[in-house]
Amino acid sequence: MTDRLDAQMAFLMEADRLKSILRATPIADDSRRENSAEHSWHLALFALVLGEHGADVSIDRVIRMLLLHDLVEIDAGDVPIYGEKDEAAIAAREQAAAKRIFGLLPADQSASFRALWEEFEANETPDAQFAKSLDRFQPPNLNLASGGGSWRDYDVSYEMFEARVGQKIARGAPGLWDWVGPKVRAYLKG
Amino acid sequence: MTDRLDAQMAFLMEADRLKSILRATPIADDSRRENSAEHSWHLALFALVLGEHGADVSIDRVIRMLLLHDLVEIDAGDVPIYGEKDEAAIAAREQAAAKRIFGLLPADQSASFRALWEEFEANETPDAQFAKSLDRFQPPNLNLASGGGSWRDYDVSYEMFEARVGQKIARGAPGLWDWVGPKVRAYLKG
Repeated sequence: MTDRLDAQMAFLMEADRLKSILRATPIADDSRRENSAEHSWHLALFALVLGEHGADVSIDRVIRMLLLHDLVEIDAGDVPIYGEKDEAAIAAREQAAAKRIFGLLPADQSASFRALWEEFEANETPDAQFAKSLDRFQPPNLNLASGGGSWRDYDVSYEMFEARVGQKIARGAPGLWDWVGPKVRAYLKG
Repeated sequence: MTDRLDAQMAFLMEADRLKSILRATPIADDSRRENSAEHSWHLALFALVLGEHGADVSIDRVIRMLLLHDLVEIDAGDVPIYGEKDEAAIAAREQAAAKRIFGLLPADQSASFRALWEEFEANETPDAQFAKSLDRFQPPNLNLASGGGSWRDYDVSYEMFEARVGQKIARGAPGLWDWVGPKVRAYLKG
């Protein structure tokens, strides 16, 4: 059992580095940028509270998915949603990161965690679509609270927001989109 | 549904403040102190990976408990384990915090979240004991990685560590105590 626990602890201590990956969005009081570890906690809490707004979802699976979803950023970095990007290069970097980071775990856990992450990325099952919707729904709420946040830094219009973010929120959580969409529209067009 | 979602969002945005509550323990690279939001994420990941080391536990319940366990610190502050403390005053502050913070939620969620937090605090069920053991098991690993961490700041001896931390790890997760105890002993006596 010691070899197994050694491997589990190597993974958990490597995961600590996610606390140093900064995202484009500030925390709500605008004092600093959010990091991907605290973002993952916040999203898991969103899932726990807002589960009833998803259709046919297992909240506990969604929470597990959200706890893991950003770990690849330890190697691949955060990709700001409004920045320029080479999707194929990012996907390749994230696949290599998943292989290395989940590969620290014992083989059975490595396979099951990686499958959950792949399911999130593919965005096809109800659980993945709801998780992805929450991942898109949380940042506009921080931007509204902080006085613009990443919209300010990237000069984002409402049309850009609707195309890159709104449609993804609506896909897995239409009720959450109905709630936040008008607030963002009023802010960005106001 | 809008009133209900308004209440849920008020809670989730208040929860954002946990990202600004600093703990006594540094992150593993010793670059800064850990905050209670990223700590909560790290612990939930510990539960997901190390669940097999608990006896008779529901990992998904433990994860839910750990996502919520530190929210009272938004009002009551973090209580460093090696500091001087007035237990009764802390308990009163935390009860008032739980009432206010969980009270932001719709009544049904307020009651169920608060019950889960009370269960964690009481430390009697297998789920609570395992969650509490993880909450005590993670910081010594960060202290070992960072070159002393909160042991350095509080001038902690191995005997003090064993009494305040070791026994709580052993209560809910004896296998984890067997793994980390000798490492801490070698470090603090070395």
